[in-house]
Amino acid sequence: MTALLDFVAELPLIDHHCHGVVPRDVDRDGFERMLTEADTVSPLGVSLFDSLIGLAVRARCAPVLDLPKHATAEDYLTRRGELGADEVNRRFLRGTGTTDFLLDGGFLAASLTTTAEFAQLSGARAHDVVRLEQVAEDVVRAGTTAAGFAADFDAELTSRANGAVGVKSIAAYRVGLELSGARPAPVEVSDAAGRWLARVDAGEPVRLADEVLHRHLVWAGIDRGLPVQFHVGYGDSDVDLHRCDPLLLTGLLRATRASGVPILLLHNYPFHRGAAYLAQVFEHVFADVGLITHNAGSRAPAILAEMLELAPFGKLLFSTDAFGLAELHHLGTALFRKGLSDFLRAALTADELSEVDAIRLARLAGYENAARIYRLEPR
Amino acid sequence: MTALLDFVAELPLIDHHCHGVVPRDVDRDGFERMLTEADTVSPLGVSLFDSLIGLAVRARCAPVLDLPKHATAEDYLTRRGELGADEVNRRFLRGTGTTDFLLDGGFLAASLTTTAEFAQLSGARAHDVVRLEQVAEDVVRAGTTAAGFAADFDAELTSRANGAVGVKSIAAYRVGLELSGARPAPVEVSDAAGRWLARVDAGEPVRLADEVLHRHLVWAGIDRGLPVQFHVGYGDSDVDLHRCDPLLLTGLLRATRASGVPILLLHNYPFHRGAAYLAQVFEHVFADVGLITHNAGSRAPAILAEMLELAPFGKLLFSTDAFGLAELHHLGTALFRKGLSDFLRAALTADELSEVDAIRLARLAGYENAARIYRLEPR
Amino acid sequence: MTALLDFVAELPLIDHHCHGVVPRDVDRDGFERMLTEADTVSPLGVSLFDSLIGLAVRARCAPVLDLPKHATAEDYLTRRGELGADEVNRRFLRGTGTTDFLLDGGFLAASLTTTAEFAQLSGARAHDVVRLEQVAEDVVRAGTTAAGFAADFDAELTSRANGAVGVKSIAAYRVGLELSGARPAPVEVSDAAGRWLARVDAGEPVRLADEVLHRHLVWAGIDRGLPVQFHVGYGDSDVDLHRCDPLLLTGLLRATRASGVPILLLHNYPFHRGAAYLAQVFEHVFADVGLITHNAGSRAPAILAEMLELAPFGKLLFSTDAFGLAELHHLGTALFRKGLSDFLRAALTADELSEVDAIRLARLAGYENAARIYRLEPR
Repeated sequence: MTALLDFVAELPLIDHHCHGVVPRDVDRDGFERMLTEADTVSPLGVSLFDSLIGLAVRARCAPVLDLPKHATAEDYLTRRGELGADEVNRRFLRGTGTTDFLLDGGFLAASLTTTAEFAQLSGARAHDVVRLEQVAEDVVRAGTTAAGFAADFDAELTSRANGAVGVKSIAAYRVGLELSGARPAPVEVSDAAGRWLARVDAGEPVRLADEVLHRHLVWAGIDRGLPVQFHVGYGDSDVDLHRCDPLLLTGLLRATRASGVPILLLHNYPFHRGAAYLAQVFEHVFADVGLITHNAGSRAPAILAEMLELAPFGKLLFSTDAFGLAELHHLGTALFRKGLSDFLRAALTADELSEVDAIRLARLAGYENAARIYRLEPR
Repeated sequence: MTALLDFVAELPLIDHHCHGVVPRDVDRDGFERMLTEADTVSPLGVSLFDSLIGLAVRARCAPVLDLPKHATAEDYLTRRGELGADEVNRRFLRGTGTTDFLLDGGFLAASLTTTAEFAQLSGARAHDVVRLEQVAEDVVRAGTTAAGFAADFDAELTSRANGAVGVKSIAAYRVGLELSGARPAPVEVSDAAGRWLARVDAGEPVRLADEVLHRHLVWAGIDRGLPVQFHVGYGDSDVDLHRCDPLLLTGLLRATRASGVPILLLHNYPFHRGAAYLAQVFEHVFADVGLITHNAGSRAPAILAEMLELAPFGKLLFSTDAFGLAELHHLGTALFRKGLSDFLRAALTADELSEVDAIRLARLAGYENAARIYRLEPR
Repeated sequence: MTALLDFVAELPLIDHHCHGVVPRDVDRDGFERMLTEADTVSPLGVSLFDSLIGLAVRARCAPVLDLPKHATAEDYLTRRGELGADEVNRRFLRGTGTTDFLLDGGFLAASLTTTAEFAQLSGARAHDVVRLEQVAEDVVRAGTTAAGFAADFDAELTSRANGAVGVKSIAAYRVGLELSGARPAPVEVSDAAGRWLARVDAGEPVRLADEVLHRHLVWAGIDRGLPVQFHVGYGDSDVDLHRCDPLLLTGLLRATRASGVPILLLHNYPFHRGAAYLAQVFEHVFADVGLITHNAGSRAPAILAEMLELAPFGKLLFSTDAFGLAELHHLGTALFRKGLSDFLRAALTADELSEVDAIRLARLAGYENAARIYRLEPR
C-alpha cells in the first residue's frame, strides 16, 4: 500500500458520527454479522470475509493484533479472542489518531460501551449525539397523550440534549427522506401523535414511523440550534434505499437554510454525488461518506473522489459510522486517510494544487469543519 | 493491452445468462443493430462502430478473424462474410473458455441457434433458463380462462422447467420493478388473468404487462426452488429505465428471503451499486454486470470495480447477456476477465490481498458461485 | 499536468451551450457567487475557492492573467481587477480555441454581454439559442388570452427563432422532466394558458411552470425542425434535482424520435450514465457533460469517461454552460480537452484504438457532431 502523505498520516481527526464498541468477545458468526450491513451469514453466499471489507480486515487489522498481513479469518478471530475485547478495542481505537468521537448511542445501546467507557478506551474525547426518534419513543413508553406529546418530547429532549453536541434523525429508516419542508402545525403534531398512540394501544410496537412526527423532531433540533444529522442512503436490509436519496430532502433543506443550523448528511452512498451537490448549493449542508468507507475497503478512495467533485472542502466531514467492532473505527479512519492522501497526492503530482493548500484542505475535512460546526472546544 | 493474470486467463467460466447466436450471415445494418441496444442505425448519429463497443470489436475480435487489430468496420464485415457465420460463431464461442452457457431462449428464438445447436457450436454445455412471461403468453395463445390460467400456467411451466436450471422474469420490460412483496392470492391472479384475456379478446397483442401476474410468475419459480433471474436496468429503448432500479425490488426480496431460493439480478447498470448493496444485505441475492460489460468496452473494468465495493465475491456472478452475435459472447467474456484481472492485480500490487485469496475469489466469481446456485454437475 | 495529445490541444471546438459574460468588474463576493451553483457565500462553509473548481481557477486561470500557478484567491481577484473585465474576458475567451459559441441569452440577459458583444470579445462566431419559456413569459407579459396564447406564442417564437440555431427548454427547473410523450391538444393548451393567466391576474409572478405548456413549447421547437436543448440534472438550489433525471424524458423521446429532430441533453450530472444510455438507444438524442466539467475541476476527465461507456462518439457534444465569468468558458474548454485527451491517450497506450480513429473521434465530439446537428456553415 502506498505510504500516506505525512500531513495526512498525522492529521488529527474528529469522527463526527460513530457508535460504541462491544465490550465482550464475539464469535465468528457475531463478528461477521457486525462486519457489514448484512443481517445474517448464509452458506448460500459464502463468507462475508470474502468482500473488500473482509480483505481490509485481514490486510490492515491483522498487523495491529501482531499477525501477518492477510492472516486467515480463523487465525484472526483466534488471536482476537486471545487478546480479549478490552485489549483489542484499546489497540484499534487508540491507533486511529482521532481526538474526538461523536457517538450516536441510540441503537442497541445495552450491548455497547457507554460514552464514558468509550472515552476511556480510546483515550480521546467522546461526545453525545441524541437520536431524536429514540427520545420520542421513550416519551411514548413513559406514557403521554396526543395533546401532551409535543411538550413531553420537548422536555425530554431538553434534558437529554444537555451536553450533547447534535441530534440525529433516522427518518430514512422509517418513512424515507421525502419529508415536506413545512414545519408541522401543533394540531398536525397532536393528531399524528394520537394516531401513533392508538397503534401502540392496539398492541403495535413503539416504533415511530410518521412523516409529520419525524419532521417535528427535526424542527425541534433546528429550534435548539443543534446540528441535525440525517442517516442517508446505505444501511442494512431494513432500509428502503430508493427512498433514502438525499435529493428527496431538497424541500426541507430549502425550508431550513434561513435558520443557519447545520444539516449533516451521513453516509449517502450510492447517492453521494447528490449529497455533494446539496453541500455545494445549500450553505448549511455538510456531507460525509461514512459507513461505506470501511465497507468499500480498497475502493474507498474512489468514492471519496466522487464526493469531492462538487463538495467544497469546507463542507466535507469525516465519520466512520463504525458500530460494535473497533476494527471498523480503525478501518474507517485508515481508509479515509488513504482516500484523502491519494486524492491530494494525485493533485500535487499533477500540479493542480500547492502543498500549502493540500495541508489546509486536509485540516478542513479532518477536523476544522467539525470543530466549527459542533462548536467543540479546542483540545 | 495489459496481459491478464495467468489464473484469470485460464479461469473456466460459467456464463449464467446469455442467448443464442444468429446462424446466418448478417449485413452491416444487421450487425450494427445487434451490436448495441439501439434499435436502428441513423446517419444523425453516425456509426455505432464509433463507440467503445465498436472499438472493442475492431481491437479484440478482428484478430480472431485473422485481421490486424483496428481493422475497419468494412474490412471486418467483409472478412466475417468470407468465413461464414458457422466458422465465425465457432471461433468466437470456443475461444471464450466457458464451460457452461445458461441460455434464455425466450426472445426471438426463431432467428437464433437452439440450445443443442449452441452446445455443439461452442463445444461446451448449454442449459436452459425458462422465460416466465413467454410461458404465460403461450398459455394464453393456446387458450385458457381466467379461472383456469393459474393451473394451465403451472402445468406448462412444469413441462418446460423440466431439465431447466432456472427461470427469468422480464417484469422490468413490462411494468418496471416496483413489484409488491406479497404473494398474490388466487382470486387476484384469476381477476388479473381475466382482465388480460379481455384485452386479448378485444384485439390487443398477447403481451403480459400486469404487476399481479408478473409477481405470480416469480412466486411460481420460487415455489419450485428454481433460481429466479430478473432483468434489471440497462436494455433497449423499450425499457423505462427509471422504473428498473433494482432497489425497487426491495419489498419482494424481503418477502422471498425466507425461501432460500436464489434471486439473480442481471445487468443492473447504471444501478449496479444498488444491486451490490442488495447482494450484500440479502443472503439470497446475487448480481452481475452482464450486457454492460461488452457495451462499455475498455470501461468495463471500471464498472466491475464499482460493483465490488459492496458485493461479496460469493455473490458476484458472470454473464455476458450476449445476443445474436458471437462477438458479444467473446467480448463479454474477455472484458470480464480483463476487469477481474485488473482489479485483482491492483490489489495484489498494493498488497491488499494475497495471491492465494485472489485465485480463490476469481474462482468464486468465475464459476463456483454459479455452479453452487444452479446446482450444475461438475464437468 | 500531463500535456494534451497534440490533436486534442489543437482541436477546434463548438461550444453548443453557454451564456455571455459579465462585462463589468466583479468583487470577491460576486465572483464566488458566479463560480459555482451556490447562491450565496457563507462563513459556515468557508470559501468556495476551497473546492475543485476554485483550485482549477488558481491552477489554470492564474497563469492566463500573468500570475504564478496557485496564486491566492486574493491575488487572483486583485490582478483581475487590475486588468479589467474587458481584457480578462478577451484573454480567456480567445484562448479557448472555440470557433462557435451557441448562446442561451435567456437568463439574466441584462447583466451579460449580448451575442454580438460576445462574438466581438471572443473573436469567434456566436449563435443564438432561444429559451422557450422566456418567449412564453414575454408573450404573457405583453398581454394575451387563454384562447390566443398558442398563436401569440407561435408568432413570437417565429420572430425570435429567425437566425437562431436551436431552442432550449428549462422544464427541469419548473416542473421537472417527467413530461408526457403526448403532444398537447389545442384545448389543453388554452386551458393551461387560462390557468396561468388567472394566476398572473391574481398577482403571482409571470413564471411558467405547467407541464402541458412546457410540453407544448417543446413540440413547437420540434415542429420547426429546430434542435431542442433540455436542461438536465445539475443546476442551482432552485432545481429539484431528483425530478431532473433524463430517464424521466423517456416517453417524450419515444414520441419525438420519428420527427428526426435532434434532442440535446445538457449537463446531466449525476445522471450522465442515464443520458448516455438515451443517446445510445434513441437515434435523435445527443448528450454532453457541460457545467459539471468546470465545476469538477481535476475530476472532469473521470466524469467524461463514465459518459463514454454508452454514448457513441457520434452522439457526444461539447459545451461549457459557462455563465458570467469567462474563467468558466476557459476552464470548461480546457477540462473537456483534458478529459478527451486522457481518455484517448489511455486507449492508445493500451492499444485499444488506433491514432487515426482517435483523431476522428475527437473531431466528432469536438465540432463535427455540433456542426451537423445545428447545420452550422463551415467557417
